[in-house]
Amino acid sequence: MKILIINGPNINLTGMREKGIYGSETYSDICEYLYDYSKGKGVETEITQTNHEGEIIDKIHSALNVYEGIVINAGAYTHYSYAIRDAISAVNIPCVEVHFSNIYGRDEFRTKSVIAPVCKGQIAGFGKYSYCLAIDALLNIKEENHE
Amino acid sequence: MKILIINGPNINLTGMREKGIYGSETYSDICEYLYDYSKGKGVETEITQTNHEGEIIDKIHSALNVYEGIVINAGAYTHYSYAIRDAISAVNIPCVEVHFSNIYGRDEFRTKSVIAPVCKGQIAGFGKYSYCLAIDALLNIKEENHE
Amino acid sequence: MKILIINGPNINLTGMREKGIYGSETYSDICEYLYDYSKGKGVETEITQTNHEGEIIDKIHSALNVYEGIVINAGAYTHYSYAIRDAISAVNIPCVEVHFSNIYGRDEFRTKSVIAPVCKGQIAGFGKYSYCLAIDALLNIKEENHE
Amino acid sequence: MKILIINGPNINLTGMREKGIYGSETYSDICEYLYDYSKGKGVETEITQTNHEGEIIDKIHSALNVYEGIVINAGAYTHYSYAIRDAISAVNIPCVEVHFSNIYGRDEFRTKSVIAPVCKGQIAGFGKYSYCLAIDALLNIKEENHE
Amino acid sequence: MKILIINGPNINLTGMREKGIYGSETYSDICEYLYDYSKGKGVETEITQTNHEGEIIDKIHSALNVYEGIVINAGAYTHYSYAIRDAISAVNIPCVEVHFSNIYGRDEFRTKSVIAPVCKGQIAGFGKYSYCLAIDALLNIKEENHE
Amino acid sequence: MKILIINGPNINLTGMREKGIYGSETYSDICEYLYDYSKGKGVETEITQTNHEGEIIDKIHSALNVYEGIVINAGAYTHYSYAIRDAISAVNIPCVEVHFSNIYGRDEFRTKSVIAPVCKGQIAGFGKYSYCLAIDALLNIKEENHE
Amino acid sequence: MKILIINGPNINLTGMREKGIYGSETYSDICEYLYDYSKGKGVETEITQTNHEGEIIDKIHSALNVYEGIVINAGAYTHYSYAIRDAISAVNIPCVEVHFSNIYGRDEFRTKSVIAPVCKGQIAGFGKYSYCLAIDALLNIKEENHE
Amino acid sequence: MKILIINGPNINLTGMREKGIYGSETYSDICEYLYDYSKGKGVETEITQTNHEGEIIDKIHSALNVYEGIVINAGAYTHYSYAIRDAISAVNIPCVEVHFSNIYGRDEFRTKSVIAPVCKGQIAGFGKYSYCLAIDALLNIKEENHE
Amino acid sequence: MKILIINGPNINLTGMREKGIYGSETYSDICEYLYDYSKGKGVETEITQTNHEGEIIDKIHSALNVYEGIVINAGAYTHYSYAIRDAISAVNIPCVEVHFSNIYGRDEFRTKSVIAPVCKGQIAGFGKYSYCLAIDALLNIKEENHE
Amino acid sequence: MKILIINGPNINLTGMREKGIYGSETYSDICEYLYDYSKGKGVETEITQTNHEGEIIDKIHSALNVYEGIVINAGAYTHYSYAIRDAISAVNIPCVEVHFSNIYGRDEFRTKSVIAPVCKGQIAGFGKYSYCLAIDALLNIKEENHE
Amino acid sequence: MKILIINGPNINLTGMREKGIYGSETYSDICEYLYDYSKGKGVETEITQTNHEGEIIDKIHSALNVYEGIVINAGAYTHYSYAIRDAISAVNIPCVEVHFSNIYGRDEFRTKSVIAPVCKGQIAGFGKYSYCLAIDALLNIKEENHE
Amino acid sequence: MKILIINGPNINLTGMREKGIYGSETYSDICEYLYDYSKGKGVETEITQTNHEGEIIDKIHSALNVYEGIVINAGAYTHYSYAIRDAISAVNIPCVEVHFSNIYGRDEFRTKSVIAPVCKGQIAGFGKYSYCLAIDALLNIKEENHE
Repeated sequence: MKILIINGPNINLTGMREKGIYGSETYSDICEYLYDYSKGKGVETEITQTNHEGEIIDKIHSALNVYEGIVINAGAYTHYSYAIRDAISAVNIPCVEVHFSNIYGRDEFRTKSVIAPVCKGQIAGFGKYSYCLAIDALLNIKEENHE
Repeated sequence: MKILIINGPNINLTGMREKGIYGSETYSDICEYLYDYSKGKGVETEITQTNHEGEIIDKIHSALNVYEGIVINAGAYTHYSYAIRDAISAVNIPCVEVHFSNIYGRDEFRTKSVIAPVCKGQIAGFGKYSYCLAIDALLNIKEENHE
Repeated sequence: MKILIINGPNINLTGMREKGIYGSETYSDICEYLYDYSKGKGVETEITQTNHEGEIIDKIHSALNVYEGIVINAGAYTHYSYAIRDAISAVNIPCVEVHFSNIYGRDEFRTKSVIAPVCKGQIAGFGKYSYCLAIDALLNIKEENHE
Repeated sequence: MKILIINGPNINLTGMREKGIYGSETYSDICEYLYDYSKGKGVETEITQTNHEGEIIDKIHSALNVYEGIVINAGAYTHYSYAIRDAISAVNIPCVEVHFSNIYGRDEFRTKSVIAPVCKGQIAGFGKYSYCLAIDALLNIKEENHE
Repeated sequence: MKILIINGPNINLTGMREKGIYGSETYSDICEYLYDYSKGKGVETEITQTNHEGEIIDKIHSALNVYEGIVINAGAYTHYSYAIRDAISAVNIPCVEVHFSNIYGRDEFRTKSVIAPVCKGQIAGFGKYSYCLAIDALLNIKEENHE
Repeated sequence: MKILIINGPNINLTGMREKGIYGSETYSDICEYLYDYSKGKGVETEITQTNHEGEIIDKIHSALNVYEGIVINAGAYTHYSYAIRDAISAVNIPCVEVHFSNIYGRDEFRTKSVIAPVCKGQIAGFGKYSYCLAIDALLNIKEENHE
Repeated sequence: MKILIINGPNINLTGMREKGIYGSETYSDICEYLYDYSKGKGVETEITQTNHEGEIIDKIHSALNVYEGIVINAGAYTHYSYAIRDAISAVNIPCVEVHFSNIYGRDEFRTKSVIAPVCKGQIAGFGKYSYCLAIDALLNIKEENHE
Repeated sequence: MKILIINGPNINLTGMREKGIYGSETYSDICEYLYDYSKGKGVETEITQTNHEGEIIDKIHSALNVYEGIVINAGAYTHYSYAIRDAISAVNIPCVEVHFSNIYGRDEFRTKSVIAPVCKGQIAGFGKYSYCLAIDALLNIKEENHE
Repeated sequence: MKILIINGPNINLTGMREKGIYGSETYSDICEYLYDYSKGKGVETEITQTNHEGEIIDKIHSALNVYEGIVINAGAYTHYSYAIRDAISAVNIPCVEVHFSNIYGRDEFRTKSVIAPVCKGQIAGFGKYSYCLAIDALLNIKEENHE
Repeated sequence: MKILIINGPNINLTGMREKGIYGSETYSDICEYLYDYSKGKGVETEITQTNHEGEIIDKIHSALNVYEGIVINAGAYTHYSYAIRDAISAVNIPCVEVHFSNIYGRDEFRTKSVIAPVCKGQIAGFGKYSYCLAIDALLNIKEENHE
Repeated sequence: MKILIINGPNINLTGMREKGIYGSETYSDICEYLYDYSKGKGVETEITQTNHEGEIIDKIHSALNVYEGIVINAGAYTHYSYAIRDAISAVNIPCVEVHFSNIYGRDEFRTKSVIAPVCKGQIAGFGKYSYCLAIDALLNIKEENHE
Repeated sequence: MKILIINGPNINLTGMREKGIYGSETYSDICEYLYDYSKGKGVETEITQTNHEGEIIDKIHSALNVYEGIVINAGAYTHYSYAIRDAISAVNIPCVEVHFSNIYGRDEFRTKSVIAPVCKGQIAGFGKYSYCLAIDALLNIKEENHE
């Protein structure tokens, strides 16, 4: 199975910013951890990060006929990018929304995701492990469809 | 590790009601599946279901000093029971909110959880597998705390 | 035809409380009146009352395969119990929402019913006679389905 | 007893429009059915239909000292015509609001009635039979006042 | 000076309806009173009443080049008829909004006038005398323009 | 092709009112222009204007089996007439909403159309030429359906 | 008859500020005009102005048993001073709210008066003449009470 | 005098949960303290606690003709239980709402009480001493009624 | 212990205004009653009243290092005076908000206190006795701090 | 005449995504169709597409002194990009907003355009033909300005 | 150049209250600092402080023809005093709103200034230095007007 | 001291667009002015402009360990870019938000800044001089930290 992990704005600074919320592991440590985790599950993963809304959309488009699942942490775009939402529903690849932190226990504006309605599901609050759970969830969705 | 799974109102009818949304497996099939999954992970699990808001609160209280984690699917209480919220924050046991369906792609009133802010995280949209991911998440939280 | 009448919180006090709104007939007088009315229509009726949200849900579940229609006056739960709403839509038995008083001419919060969208219809404002009209409506629904 | 039934905008097209919601019986079939039903109950009924808000008001005024009850289906005017509301409360004849469909299970704007607060009660969701129930309700109101 | 007084829906029933709010003088008594008052001020007045929103608009149009001032009590249309508002701003004749009762001390929906922004001013709360004050106000406006 | 153009309240005063917004051509000039334009396109057009909400509804009903398209400028009724909306969806004739001015650059209340959701589309901001574009659009819709 | 006219904040600058809205007559010119007008009507008037909310309240209290009517232009306090509102309803002297300009055709925040619900009525839009109309209205109220 | 003290959800955990807000005294310590306080005032008190909304309602009903006053701390139900509100207004026993903490200085949702409008008064912010003040208040109400 | 009682706008009229809500005792009777009550509790009390928002703030400032507690009934300023709120949080003296009437059972605007979040607690609904309870509460707070 | 057509995010996938809404013609088919249409009208057209908000703004800037009109379909950016709005009003070239689908008959968030207020007009609901109508509209605007 | 600095409620307590937000320098220290700063810039400054809304208005009025610029920190009145707003726009002297703290990073109610729309600009977040920047800004405005 | 000035969308067109609001100086004139001003203050400044949200974020990230202060005019992104907000709070460099115009005296949507809560402060309304004041403010912040 091939999965694309898309990280949105400011996630590259993880480990450098607000450590109380996001922990002190660096972004590249986390990427390595996720590559390992995926390999252990027999999943081929590509991880990408960009601060540009438009590039996230380009990336989602490019996933067509290449990836069987998308894990997306759209950062703050989660809360207002209807354009990313449209991209996800356009390509029609199973997509799981993830967040490091529990977005419901922070600022009011973080409790609303405009992307969630077009994803398969949402996983939030478990740090880097949120991504692992999302990979497992995509494997499970694939398996169920094959039955 | 001992985990308590609490299912709220109407979940006992799963497999009998709105199959388009909840699938056609019965509630007892799902319980069995979850007991098996837990055992495979070395987790001792108790699963409980009730339609009563007060009993959910009693159950959460009774978890004190007995369980190390709670998985809760509070059904429709998710959207207005500040009393369940207070119970979760009172016992201070790591708690994960789960939902069968992607609550963000359905009725407007289902997009708001008053419980989420006091949980560790939220997992929604993966059917019965949402519970498995929640169990994995609790194991991961325990592991990280031990490091 | 077998019909279940469910009365929610505080309705047992009818005749004792706010007589300006609810009249001075006691709850048991009203029950008797409704048993008589039903019998006259050839309908077998059970009337139940509880102040517990959870018991209303249990009662709705228990109606499965037993009753062909439900008449529900959920009292104040009408305005916030999404859990009762889910129960009604889960059992899929024709259900009619009733109210003694015209809920649109009283407090603002009483003008919103979260249950109404999953009922067949709503009848409000005719005192105990609201229940009679509901019984007639259920008979009419049954008849139409037979044609 | 003499009852006036007022039908508002577009109801004349019943049977021709949105049959999924309103059924396929024509408006004149329904009128005939209601005339029969009324006669069976010993009620003298006049049925009127107009697409004009002003004519509905004129009609309500003209009921003064002529009719003992009004059944009104104000169509879409239900949701914004404070002028019809004022007419109803001005003539002070018992008035019952009816709707073919369950207005609480459709568009958001249909869940608000500005007329309901000045009616005796509201009956919605039972097709043409909603009118029959309204006639019965008016008979019951008259009877109770005579006691 | 020639002034047109336009009365909207249900005002013809004044003296017959809700006497606590509107007093017990009949509509024709009030008209006579206003004709007398106008004559005493040297003003030629026409008074018209209709329950039809469209006729109010027609009437306003017909005032072009005939009347030098309009006094309007649009009844409940005051609160939602943007069409009457457009008519007033289209003809560009000084217009004064009047109300018998103090609309700010009644139902919430009566506190909003969509017509007021395009009138010269608003006078509310003085019964039939509100109209007299409006006539005086129009005389004063005319006088000031002549200076 | 036969098309009905319906103009709502105050549009008859075009050329006489607020010329900054609506231009100084009179209503009859515009009608003539549109008759010419239609003829040039081989379309038989009827243009009608009324200030009465009810007459607009009557007119829409009367189009059944007579016209293949409707162009409607409902004036201020655009913003609150759910009754006109219901009429349009009842007759099921392709309908295009038009406006002289760009309604999004004026008063807040003019930015909401309750009619738009049941029309084929909306064209606003091009003066009388908005109607021409609507006629072209209806021709195009007809053509596409024939393919 | 003795009437107290209370002018609130910034009204002393009339004639000096925003002449487009308030005209160019000075405040003392207007006072003189009103004293003359009152005398002509046989009314003894006191006019007072203050920028202090507390002094307006003190002034209203001091009117008890001294004045038979109050004319109040509370300036911007109109929109938020519930304390002035309470003062008016406490002394129970007939009070008329006035404004120079048509407050409904200006900023949104000026369309709401928290004082109006406890006044006899409201007169707005006629410049200094608004006060004259208010004096006439108070005379009329007194007269009607004597009948 | 006989007083019933009703404690709602999670209050049994006082002393165990969120000590920063609720202090570290246990629930039974507090009960004892209140029994002592009552006795000292010559008041016979019963204290009850339940996590069930329905049981709170049952308890309120059972107070009829037994208790002369109710002190209620409905916990989180305070913010949404219209059913408890109806129960209080139905039994018509003087009722005082209490809270340990100052609910106005915490989460937004805690600032709204749906119960307060039907209570005699509200006392919040003084820890267990809030209950003492409530008992004193009920004594004072009784005394005043006897005068 | 020295306590300062601050009464805001219109409270000086108590006993003269709206007796249904505030009772018929005069303000000076109440003051005397409170002086007596305080003396009985060994508390030295100063009572002050003003209609001026600014003077309330001055008074609060002047309490610094003089009084150990403040009882404040800010009248209608309660609902909008963020300036008084800032004064209370600036001086950091324990402050209790009181109201004669149950502010939650009256006008909607009275249900919101902008002062409450910075007070120790709120007591409302017990007439003059609300002040006594506040004095007791301040004594209790002092006592607890000494332990 | 030279016209620039700007297509925003996800429009490149037209014909591949949600065919029920957008039809099955591919994006390049549509471009060709529009080039043909333009040529037939004697208009030189450039069509551009990008998923990047910033590039849309760059593109609008680059139109200065090059194009005489802009047709823009900003995709989901329509609903929140105040930056695109500012770009349009900055360059001051006549701009027409277009949409394939009737945005008023879909999701709530699609009914609001933040761009519309600074465009000449809006055309929505006619598929690719919306663009043709926009080109005609721009031609008409140019023509009228020349008169 | 002569500048008037107006400080509103509670600012006199700066250095004594909430030091975490406002620092520990006393109000008179700050005044001295500002007098020095002004002198260094060749500006004659008067600094005034009052807790009374009315006095702030009086002060603004008195600035007419005396001062060429106003720096205002209206404290909590910033958020609701439309009366101060009217005073500023009445005198038409360049006015700069200042705040010690960044009002956008604190309580929700502090993010709205009703005064800002009629000021030249706003400077917030730089402690006492905010005033210095405001003085510089006024100097710059004067300079630009002289060019 | 090294300061980075970031200008967002459309600011490059300053001097070419809406001159009534933004003045007629070109963007490069302003840049030069600011370079001069900075040099005069001994500050090394880099000025950058982009229409791309993502590039603003990249730029902020690149300031880490290079600049000691950021001055940002995010243009219309100010009102909705939570992604830029996150970037600012991630790099933790003192940041000052600036605007040419007084954003509180224009469109409603411009009065809300989602960036302000994470900046040190905000300066708006003084044209290009706003930037100068921001540079001074950053100098002052640095100085204070050194003390």
